[in-house]
Amino acid sequence: MADTQASYAELVKLKREQATLGSVSALVGWDQETYMPAGGADFRAEQSAVLAKLVHERATSPRVGELLDACAQDRALGDASPPTGASLREMRRDYDLATKLPGDLVAELAQTGSLAQEAWKHAREGNDFQAFRPWLEKMVELARRKAQCYGTPEGGEAYDALLNEYEPDARASEIAGVFEPLRERLSAFIAEVRDNGTPPDTKVLGTKISEGAQHAFGIRVLDAIGCDLNAGRLDTTTHPFCSGMAPGDTRLTTRYREQHFSDALYSTMHEGGHGLYEQGLPKGGELFGTPLAESVSLGIHESQSRLWENFVGRSSQFWTWAMPIAKDLFGGALGGVSVEHMTAAVNTATPSLIRVESDEATYNLHVMLRFTLERAMMRGELEVADLPGEWNRLMQEMLGVEVPDDARGCLQDVHWSFGLMGYFPTYALGNLYAAQIWETIRERIPTLDAQIERGSFGELLGFLREHIHAHGRRYSAGELCERITGKPLEAEPLMRHLASRVKPAYGMA
Amino acid sequence: MADTQASYAELVKLKREQATLGSVSALVGWDQETYMPAGGADFRAEQSAVLAKLVHERATSPRVGELLDACAQDRALGDASPPTGASLREMRRDYDLATKLPGDLVAELAQTGSLAQEAWKHAREGNDFQAFRPWLEKMVELARRKAQCYGTPEGGEAYDALLNEYEPDARASEIAGVFEPLRERLSAFIAEVRDNGTPPDTKVLGTKISEGAQHAFGIRVLDAIGCDLNAGRLDTTTHPFCSGMAPGDTRLTTRYREQHFSDALYSTMHEGGHGLYEQGLPKGGELFGTPLAESVSLGIHESQSRLWENFVGRSSQFWTWAMPIAKDLFGGALGGVSVEHMTAAVNTATPSLIRVESDEATYNLHVMLRFTLERAMMRGELEVADLPGEWNRLMQEMLGVEVPDDARGCLQDVHWSFGLMGYFPTYALGNLYAAQIWETIRERIPTLDAQIERGSFGELLGFLREHIHAHGRRYSAGELCERITGKPLEAEPLMRHLASRVKPAYGMA
Repeated sequence: MADTQASYAELVKLKREQATLGSVSALVGWDQETYMPAGGADFRAEQSAVLAKLVHERATSPRVGELLDACAQDRALGDASPPTGASLREMRRDYDLATKLPGDLVAELAQTGSLAQEAWKHAREGNDFQAFRPWLEKMVELARRKAQCYGTPEGGEAYDALLNEYEPDARASEIAGVFEPLRERLSAFIAEVRDNGTPPDTKVLGTKISEGAQHAFGIRVLDAIGCDLNAGRLDTTTHPFCSGMAPGDTRLTTRYREQHFSDALYSTMHEGGHGLYEQGLPKGGELFGTPLAESVSLGIHESQSRLWENFVGRSSQFWTWAMPIAKDLFGGALGGVSVEHMTAAVNTATPSLIRVESDEATYNLHVMLRFTLERAMMRGELEVADLPGEWNRLMQEMLGVEVPDDARGCLQDVHWSFGLMGYFPTYALGNLYAAQIWETIRERIPTLDAQIERGSFGELLGFLREHIHAHGRRYSAGELCERITGKPLEAEPLMRHLASRVKPAYGMA
Repeated sequence: MADTQASYAELVKLKREQATLGSVSALVGWDQETYMPAGGADFRAEQSAVLAKLVHERATSPRVGELLDACAQDRALGDASPPTGASLREMRRDYDLATKLPGDLVAELAQTGSLAQEAWKHAREGNDFQAFRPWLEKMVELARRKAQCYGTPEGGEAYDALLNEYEPDARASEIAGVFEPLRERLSAFIAEVRDNGTPPDTKVLGTKISEGAQHAFGIRVLDAIGCDLNAGRLDTTTHPFCSGMAPGDTRLTTRYREQHFSDALYSTMHEGGHGLYEQGLPKGGELFGTPLAESVSLGIHESQSRLWENFVGRSSQFWTWAMPIAKDLFGGALGGVSVEHMTAAVNTATPSLIRVESDEATYNLHVMLRFTLERAMMRGELEVADLPGEWNRLMQEMLGVEVPDDARGCLQDVHWSFGLMGYFPTYALGNLYAAQIWETIRERIPTLDAQIERGSFGELLGFLREHIHAHGRRYSAGELCERITGKPLEAEPLMRHLASRVKPAYGMA
């Protein structure tokens, strides 16, 4: 027993060193996107590679395997202390995943992925799918080999092995079971809105607001929702992101366009939601480096960002509080705009071509389309050569949109070029988890609307802290969902949420 | 022969990985001073410690020793290719130095140094030398143990072993041989100026200039002198520094005070000089990580910063070029100020209490005082208890200044608190090297004055690139000095330089 405790202590120490190197790697990545001078780019790749190698060595160290085995001998360790048991379970999962991939496959994925990404850039610029095709074929083949190394879970499919990297234990069949009804309901809903509603006037979102004023507004909102900017910061990058890089150090980025202030606001709130999760994870004391201080899954992470961005940020209650602040900071630029007008403007449901520019309602259809296609490619039911045709057909079927060219079609996203398959569905899962959790929160905090109207977000954040953030990876995403909402994930809450926001905006209330 | 080349290639590869980790460590250090949120401070120490451990493991790896031995068998490797021979010589030096210190001493130095530094902070704030005394005694004792581990060089003294870390192969006796005449000449010179000159009007330096305008001016100057800001950047920190952290990535910092624009300018030019050296070191291709891509010594590094800060930046030729630019960027704030007036204002020679606030002429006396005292402490000729009295006596003797309290006396600098002994003299060595090299440059580039007057610094930088930067550590500091100037280091050039600048400023020309 004493031996096992020593083994567990050594394991925690090794994992902490691995996580510390991971945190340095995250800083190096953050710097690359924020302040690194252009001349540093070539060597930056070498710095990242050395750190990745050191992290990988630690993740796959035989010593970790020995210690896990030693701890497994001791049932008391798992049973007596549930968090420790969960920590060991998740460490075992990480170790098994990391050791299943042979080094040469990892290297080939990195190298071919890097070349394929370059090829994708040129293909997208030149609207030339044929130039990208051989690279995508290679990446699909490598993804298949990767799935083979991981092994198909019992009763599952090869795609599940990839999904598992981002959404542990999720199954494509289960996701499809939620996505399919959602897809039907959403397509119908969007058609209904198109046919029976009056689109809101969104010109207000094009009001010219200086970058400085937008930044001040973003900081004010982050501070109000509970982001600790003494343990984090907000910078500007081409693509917004959040890096919860280390204990006490969570960095957010956003981007500003003078005539699209709501883009920056919602990017900031989105990353702020990720940041609140990172700041709520118990990284203090001895826990940093263990699964207990880590996020559950990409889906749950995304649920936190979407909850603040959409469920809070696009509500009339939010704008009741935020409008006077915006008017003040924007120097009267929004002078005559009402809360109702602003709320309607940020709740459209208009099909469009590009996922990252789509609104809250149509976004999920873009994601489901990608899920359908990548799953089919992994199953061998869809050839890469047939991807553009199938993409365009589904865009028509699901969103009613004609795709004019591949650059605005199947070449628009970077993900597949470096082998990210099984990643897209986590975006929609995030929306679904957020919706289902949001319904529960609204029941449990009956005064939530009034709280938000006066800019009081503490009870909401406290709920997320207690029921999600504090647990780290102790429970799986599915378990968390059931513990909080009493039900497995389903499509209805998201549909109810969208209807409650979009219908009033289109005068259909 | 083929084997030896393989050994050398492996050595270069190992050293490159070590340097890459060092570069990451430098980035982590830079971030700590620039953008890290306060909440990240505690964990930052852990990140730095893990990186330091990894670098140390590589620096002391037995494999490096084996490879160095293997390469040493092959005379051809050293003889046939002088840079490779020099590279091996310096790698051997680094390895011997790194392996001579036992791990527990390194740890004790770090830990006690960290506590002593905290004690120093409080002691300085509270003007309480007695509170710091036991800590300084410990650090002196640790420095002695460190010197013992390194071993006293033949014919030298224990202090030389410490000096060697910063100024390879330098001897205290040789430094004293240059410092002693310099000290006498300087003290006499400062007295002469005080008694016979009229101090210049320096009120112009207090003109209020916005931080933005100062920054724009600094960037303009850096760009003109040849700093590649596409391969570097300029940020703001409490204490200015330069970190030539990686190939293509050299970061400078400065600080701005609205009513002291010349402070920021000269800090920027000082760090810019360090930066030009870092950017001129041959870090490309396979060389990064080898001594051929590294700076010779702190003294030579400082010579480069001081050359641009003082020899260029305080010249009337510089101001002939820079004055119209400053007037333009500062929005007329320097409207009526002449080049002569500005040049005089930045060339004072007024004894003062604080080293870092002292002028170019008196600065060296502050350094020599510290050299005298730390050498005496290492020799056991000065007890820590007697330090304040001796400090105050020397301040009176060398600078004619009465020290009112220890906070502004022997407690003013941080260096000794974490065991930096043998470091101070490199500051004055930098001034001496700069002066001697500057005289040679003025002979070799007869039109230098005219070039500077029109803001053309390319030929000057080209000379430094060719004769200093390009060599890395191929030649020692002393060899470089002799190769460039034809003479060993001496005090006269610096005295001639100071007289040429200070006397006109005091109306003594």
